[in-house]
Amino acid sequence: MLDQDGKIRDLSGHVSDIGGEAISPEGLTKIAAIDASTLPELSADRIGACVTGTGKFICIGLNYSDHAAETGATVPPEPIIFMKATSAIVGPNDDVVIPRTSEKTDWEVELGVVIGKTAKYVSEAEALDYVAGYCLTNDVSERAFQTERAGQWTKGKSCDTFGPIGPWLVTKDEVADPQNLGMWLTVNGEKMQNGSSKTMVYGVAFLVSYLSQFMSLHPGDVISTGTPPGVGLGLKPPRFLKAGDVVELGIDGLGTQKQTFVADI
Amino acid sequence: MLDQDGKIRDLSGHVSDIGGEAISPEGLTKIAAIDASTLPELSADRIGACVTGTGKFICIGLNYSDHAAETGATVPPEPIIFMKATSAIVGPNDDVVIPRTSEKTDWEVELGVVIGKTAKYVSEAEALDYVAGYCLTNDVSERAFQTERAGQWTKGKSCDTFGPIGPWLVTKDEVADPQNLGMWLTVNGEKMQNGSSKTMVYGVAFLVSYLSQFMSLHPGDVISTGTPPGVGLGLKPPRFLKAGDVVELGIDGLGTQKQTFVADI
Repeated sequence: MLDQDGKIRDLSGHVSDIGGEAISPEGLTKIAAIDASTLPELSADRIGACVTGTGKFICIGLNYSDHAAETGATVPPEPIIFMKATSAIVGPNDDVVIPRTSEKTDWEVELGVVIGKTAKYVSEAEALDYVAGYCLTNDVSERAFQTERAGQWTKGKSCDTFGPIGPWLVTKDEVADPQNLGMWLTVNGEKMQNGSSKTMVYGVAFLVSYLSQFMSLHPGDVISTGTPPGVGLGLKPPRFLKAGDVVELGIDGLGTQKQTFVADI
Repeated sequence: MLDQDGKIRDLSGHVSDIGGEAISPEGLTKIAAIDASTLPELSADRIGACVTGTGKFICIGLNYSDHAAETGATVPPEPIIFMKATSAIVGPNDDVVIPRTSEKTDWEVELGVVIGKTAKYVSEAEALDYVAGYCLTNDVSERAFQTERAGQWTKGKSCDTFGPIGPWLVTKDEVADPQNLGMWLTVNGEKMQNGSSKTMVYGVAFLVSYLSQFMSLHPGDVISTGTPPGVGLGLKPPRFLKAGDVVELGIDGLGTQKQTFVADI
């Protein structure tokens, strides 16, 4: 847990991990009642993924109108959903491994939504009651695998290490308006994405409600809500990541990530 | 565990569950060494899913040439892969719940492959070394959700209860040739599907190898390898399931399933 001064405090005396019961409304109320100054201070050499027990890593496609335009697609009449393998999840600053046959590895800064309570057939009005909080995600994508290798995007989204999430699971009480968060991404220091969640086509509450019409959402499930313009695929000419490239990204209030992309040897 | 006479024997004194370590090559060797007659006999009112700890439920699309033809699609140049939410998994004889807005709930008998050892970049020749065994799956599908609701099939594949697996995880030593298994499915006693895994376009070993080029496969992951002809969508006129319908299915040596389809009230 981060205290008010930004110091990392050790919650392990109170919860076994950040997931399941710990991120339920009751669990978060208990954690919020802890006096952070009573917890041991930690120095973290590595920060892991910000939530555990993720059964589903659901992504929303083409959810920013400008991003749809840059990839040559139109805004869909309802949300496009696809799955990212949960085995792709890594910590926010871990190396991202470019698959051996990859030629088109790309970046996508996204707002992640972490479910805290099982949601099924919930209305848009009550949808945020089922959200534990938010996190920064990089929906790393291999464009050739995604669109040139016989249908269905999951193939280009699910490679190992393609799902950095975190550093923080920021509880929803700390996020005044999830639809007004600045977001950015740089490659080797050069600004590539610079947007805001206010231009999302389908907002967080709508998405939680919408998904819950198809399937139950469970505590620890993560919804990555789509990316603003500026991905490599949309550049003219397109630009993709190579070993040694460093990607940094951030969303207002949710922290930053920094990944070195490496070859899979 | 089933003994040689088909009686259910209690393994709980030896393994905590059927998944992870228990289905690794070492785990299965240990289980195989147990004298089944020494285990308590069980009577099962309900049989659960045949494996636990499934991180990925990967499905292969249009993997029988005749099925591709009946749905109006062509055989893909390489396997189509998509994800079914693991939260869809249920036992082989559990009720399947038709989602509230569903009008096109359909059936698909499929050969499931259960991974027993982490596989990454494995060759087709060595692929079966990473397989713990096989199971029967019903890749229940909502065709309108799958193809008429804005892209990506996962939406019509991931509804709660849409993933009956089992009854048995049949270890691979018990399956002489996974590419020569008869498979069938009936609706209210009427034969709808009647095929064989010998007409699969991409076989089990190829699929395990292929998938492992994109992502690590982990113990407990399930690959559902596609369905032969005879799904409701392919009938003229198409036919879909309604509350009260009973679906039974089976694959040679892997047992049978029987599901009652019910309304989501």
